[in-house]
Amino acid sequence: MGVGEFSFQYNSDVDRPSPPLYVNGEAADTLPVSDRGLAYGDGLFETIAVREGKLEFWGRHLARLREGCERLRIPEPDLGELAREAERLLNGQRTIQGVDQGILKIIITRGSGGRGYRAPESPEPTRIVAFHPWPEIPDSHALEGVKIRRCDLQLSHQPALAGIKHLNRLENVLARGEWDDPDIAEGLLCDGEGNVIEGTMSNLFIEREGILLTPDLSRCGVAGIIRAVVMEEASSQGLCVEVTDIRYEDATTADALFLTNSVMGIWPVCELDGKAFVISPTTRALMERLDLRRRASGED
Amino acid sequence: MGVGEFSFQYNSDVDRPSPPLYVNGEAADTLPVSDRGLAYGDGLFETIAVREGKLEFWGRHLARLREGCERLRIPEPDLGELAREAERLLNGQRTIQGVDQGILKIIITRGSGGRGYRAPESPEPTRIVAFHPWPEIPDSHALEGVKIRRCDLQLSHQPALAGIKHLNRLENVLARGEWDDPDIAEGLLCDGEGNVIEGTMSNLFIEREGILLTPDLSRCGVAGIIRAVVMEEASSQGLCVEVTDIRYEDATTADALFLTNSVMGIWPVCELDGKAFVISPTTRALMERLDLRRRASGED
Repeated sequence: MGVGEFSFQYNSDVDRPSPPLYVNGEAADTLPVSDRGLAYGDGLFETIAVREGKLEFWGRHLARLREGCERLRIPEPDLGELAREAERLLNGQRTIQGVDQGILKIIITRGSGGRGYRAPESPEPTRIVAFHPWPEIPDSHALEGVKIRRCDLQLSHQPALAGIKHLNRLENVLARGEWDDPDIAEGLLCDGEGNVIEGTMSNLFIEREGILLTPDLSRCGVAGIIRAVVMEEASSQGLCVEVTDIRYEDATTADALFLTNSVMGIWPVCELDGKAFVISPTTRALMERLDLRRRASGED
Repeated sequence: MGVGEFSFQYNSDVDRPSPPLYVNGEAADTLPVSDRGLAYGDGLFETIAVREGKLEFWGRHLARLREGCERLRIPEPDLGELAREAERLLNGQRTIQGVDQGILKIIITRGSGGRGYRAPESPEPTRIVAFHPWPEIPDSHALEGVKIRRCDLQLSHQPALAGIKHLNRLENVLARGEWDDPDIAEGLLCDGEGNVIEGTMSNLFIEREGILLTPDLSRCGVAGIIRAVVMEEASSQGLCVEVTDIRYEDATTADALFLTNSVMGIWPVCELDGKAFVISPTTRALMERLDLRRRASGED
């Protein structure tokens, strides 16, 4: 989700102003040009659903962010500060704007400076917290499923970056640029070996003979929060879940397919490159389970 | 080179102030948090040497920038405006700071906004032009050669992004983070198949039995400006130059090695992972030829 698409709503007459953005704890909507997040995509982000004023799966998002910091060797941000800034944004939106649903986006970068690619010896990370309006998603996406396509762009293998939600996202941008048709809700990305990995903004599950399969993300792709929750829910319901290599042909011949991400939850797939799919009872059951988990995710 | 490592030198008493940075033509050192350059690394950059007040290989840098815009489908910036902004920065540095040597860095991004990875229908690119101090480079690097190492990180294959100087540079950042030893001037990056591709900030040439070889960059790597000039110069001197796959072992057993980039020109390699190399007469001749070309590169 793009940051800063709405204007700064500062109201000096109100005790607690409601800026939609904090940069290092300050109400701001700019950052220094010298930031390595801009220069090299040297950072991470999280996109967190806010519903009924609550941050869904906050703990899991922070855990992924921490893992990303560790992998990129960016000093971990102060998680207490992050939580306070998020809470202030949410309070501001609720009390001043009357909004209790939206998207909280966090960006952590290695901060400014350093000559060239070499990181500064003592980096001072940049911490951005922003509140975005909830996107317009047709109800039919969840009720009737979405039409999707295979993208031409092939994801590259980079185990050093696989799984984490880093800021080097040109592959996703190029893949999303492949289609304009508003009836196509998502594109599937394969690697150079013909394995399907993920959607441009989502993870993929396929159902085959009662087993749930989701692509191995050890070489590329982002390990989504909802993907992990769905795997847990499926297992807890006695369903066998496998993380494995999945050929694109395995997807087109599956009994059912669905996509996951933090905002949309689960979208069943009703059509992939013209081939029709039904929404399976398993998918419907997981959608219900996920909805309960999202509502109860305050501490998760 | 990091942007904005020196402070804003605005002097309101002077007719033509000398800001070290322009963002979309305005003296500024910040940009909106909503910029896609930050969100996704959705953009390109160029690092141009300035010596004796002249931009070296300006035309070639612009050509690569244009190719990058075309490949990423970012609207091409107004090249006349870019040139005027660069000239203003250089004039300011020369007349107010007395500086006629430095580095001009250009960043072009797809601009702000757009929901998610999908680009806005009519993007308004961000154009950043910044002047940086010339880095401190020991004379010995050119005179005696540099010690280099092989990096553990393996470059991923992504033909859609190969060759252009885009902002997704986490591989370079991670690779440069592998060593601290100030005696090691550069690290070589191989792909997953054992082909050596480039340095973290440079291109590689190897000399073998009178032939000059440089890695094929169609799957990964940045096609450097100096690399192209050196290939031309070598060919014009009757030297055979091949662009091909080069195994790391081919590099360690070469007769001579050298690195190129826009700031350092040519650095001979005197040691790779402990193995010593001599500086060949060919390397020395190319260094002289390159120096002449750099001085004469005003229109190039």
